Amino acid sequence: MKHSKKFINDPKQIGNEAISGYLKASSGFLHQVGDKNVLVANNIPDNKVGILTGGGLAAEPLFMGYVGKNMADCAVIGNINAAPSPFDILIGTQAIHQGKGVLYIYNNYFGDVMTFDMAQELAMDEGIKVETVCVYDNVGSAPLEEITSRKGNMGAIYVLKIAGAASSGIYDLCQLKGNVEKARDNTRSLIVVGDTGYYLESSDPMFEMPFDEIEYGVGLHGEPGLFRDKVEPVDRVVEKVMNILLPDLKCKKGDAVVAMVNSMGATSITELFIINRKLNEILDQRSVSVVHNDVGFFYTSQDMVGFSITLMKLDEELTTFFYEPAYSFSYKFSP
Amino acid sequence: MKHSKKFINDPKQIGNEAISGYLKASSGFLHQVGDKNVLVANNIPDNKVGILTGGGLAAEPLFMGYVGKNMADCAVIGNINAAPSPFDILIGTQAIHQGKGVLYIYNNYFGDVMTFDMAQELAMDEGIKVETVCVYDNVGSAPLEEITSRKGNMGAIYVLKIAGAASSGIYDLCQLKGNVEKARDNTRSLIVVGDTGYYLESSDPMFEMPFDEIEYGVGLHGEPGLFRDKVEPVDRVVEKVMNILLPDLKCKKGDAVVAMVNSMGATSITELFIINRKLNEILDQRSVSVVHNDVGFFYTSQDMVGFSITLMKLDEELTTFFYEPAYSFSYKFSP
Repeated sequence: MKHSKKFINDPKQIGNEAISGYLKASSGFLHQVGDKNVLVANNIPDNKVGILTGGGLAAEPLFMGYVGKNMADCAVIGNINAAPSPFDILIGTQAIHQGKGVLYIYNNYFGDVMTFDMAQELAMDEGIKVETVCVYDNVGSAPLEEITSRKGNMGAIYVLKIAGAASSGIYDLCQLKGNVEKARDNTRSLIVVGDTGYYLESSDPMFEMPFDEIEYGVGLHGEPGLFRDKVEPVDRVVEKVMNILLPDLKCKKGDAVVAMVNSMGATSITELFIINRKLNEILDQRSVSVVHNDVGFFYTSQDMVGFSITLMKLDEELTTFFYEPAYSFSYKFSP
Repeated sequence: MKHSKKFINDPKQIGNEAISGYLKASSGFLHQVGDKNVLVANNIPDNKVGILTGGGLAAEPLFMGYVGKNMADCAVIGNINAAPSPFDILIGTQAIHQGKGVLYIYNNYFGDVMTFDMAQELAMDEGIKVETVCVYDNVGSAPLEEITSRKGNMGAIYVLKIAGAASSGIYDLCQLKGNVEKARDNTRSLIVVGDTGYYLESSDPMFEMPFDEIEYGVGLHGEPGLFRDKVEPVDRVVEKVMNILLPDLKCKKGDAVVAMVNSMGATSITELFIINRKLNEILDQRSVSVVHNDVGFFYTSQDMVGFSITLMKLDEELTTFFYEPAYSFSYKFSP
């Protein structure tokens, strides 16, 4: 049986201990509400619509890494692969509400949709206006015609980037929601996996992969994707990814994008740079300009071998929002 | 034979392709000199002593990720596990020299010492004053009595952080060197490894590890360290690490440190947070204050399973330097 070594204590305490260690490293960005898994940004500007995100502890370091200046105002964290409690979301909502309402931004998983819908009802009962934007950027999880069935993944980072910037200048919840939906609708991700990651709690593999194959379009834990293929030079792999992403996004000559190359865990940044070189070459050949380019460990699934590419297409308005500075633990941007 | 899947093209082109992809992602920070592996920061302030670093392409993303505002002014990159050419270092030296001299900061490996010494002679022949600081933070690689025989690792990041800040305010090369040497002398790292990483060029394992053991104090590629031990709860592992680091650094009650928990590649950020929780608990128990705390992927060795802890002890002067903002691809700090 394959396994991997994990540096943990009691598997049941992973969530508590990780959040506790995260708080030590991010005290400049945020603080905890009581003993709840509710993390609230420091120094939230007055009078803004609140941006609240959250989900299970699995897509590291979503969502807690993205709370900060011009990013999310609050993240509510569940256990490993478990949605957060709607009562915790309500606590977070109350903590950041300033009379202008709160926007929930979360990834499209069944449990998260349910819990955020429940929290929205609880908040409305308290007289707080709440709207939601559900992110579904993973092109491998359903066809374009069923885009709202797609899962949400690392695209949420760019949606939060836009939401954070926009919410500092737009004081109407519904108008803000429209802008954030546009960011969501313009965002696509695809995950390529070379080998399994291993669960943190058990050190067991998440799935099996043949020695000589890679898979395109998988989910966060290797949920079956679009197709498997032989291992080949990575330039060919990137071409295949872009041949899926660009048409899905209806990206054409003259368009502008932000582009992220992300490690799924065990793929090194040196490999990500090689991938990024080809990604930029392809975009250049197609006369698509790259407004900003991120490469790194933004959304991992333990020690999974693989990478993801995310594109967000920008119009003039989204470009303006994107150029706002952002400062959180896991995403920092200075124009 | 164990192996890992790597996303590359021609193994001989890894260096060129990775640097090319890095340049695309970091155009805000730096530019390349001609077609050389010489990367120079954009917008270097006038009249400063130049800070030049470099080394082989293996400790990702050292050294290229640490060029930027109040960090290194230039990084010169060699091939995988090969020191850069002294002639390339000379080109970098000339590119950043503003009449105040240049300080070379590099890690203590035989090839790097040789090449930087040669480059220093070449630069002196050109009339450029050069001083060098060789970093040797890895406590596992030699006893304290032979500290100058220790290898240099991720501690170089903090030394560069101090050098970048200090060089913006100190215009005398020798005085600056003294400050940077103090940072170096106050910095210690220890690497704990759970399992091998796999070479990027060949997918072969770097070394073998027993199923139920971990090793303390290894080198970047798993070079033998201090001792092997059974797998146990990570709190115990962190205690053992700190019981080595703190006495070696002569760290006592009332001292202040910056602390980094770094993944060696395949260890997830969730695990790093758990480690960071215990690290902070131990420092708190010993009344050592944490001025700043970094957690992430700052210096990896491909998909090695393991982590490192780095401590830099700060006096008042180093604290002032540390609080200067820094902005590079891989290290961003805003006080």
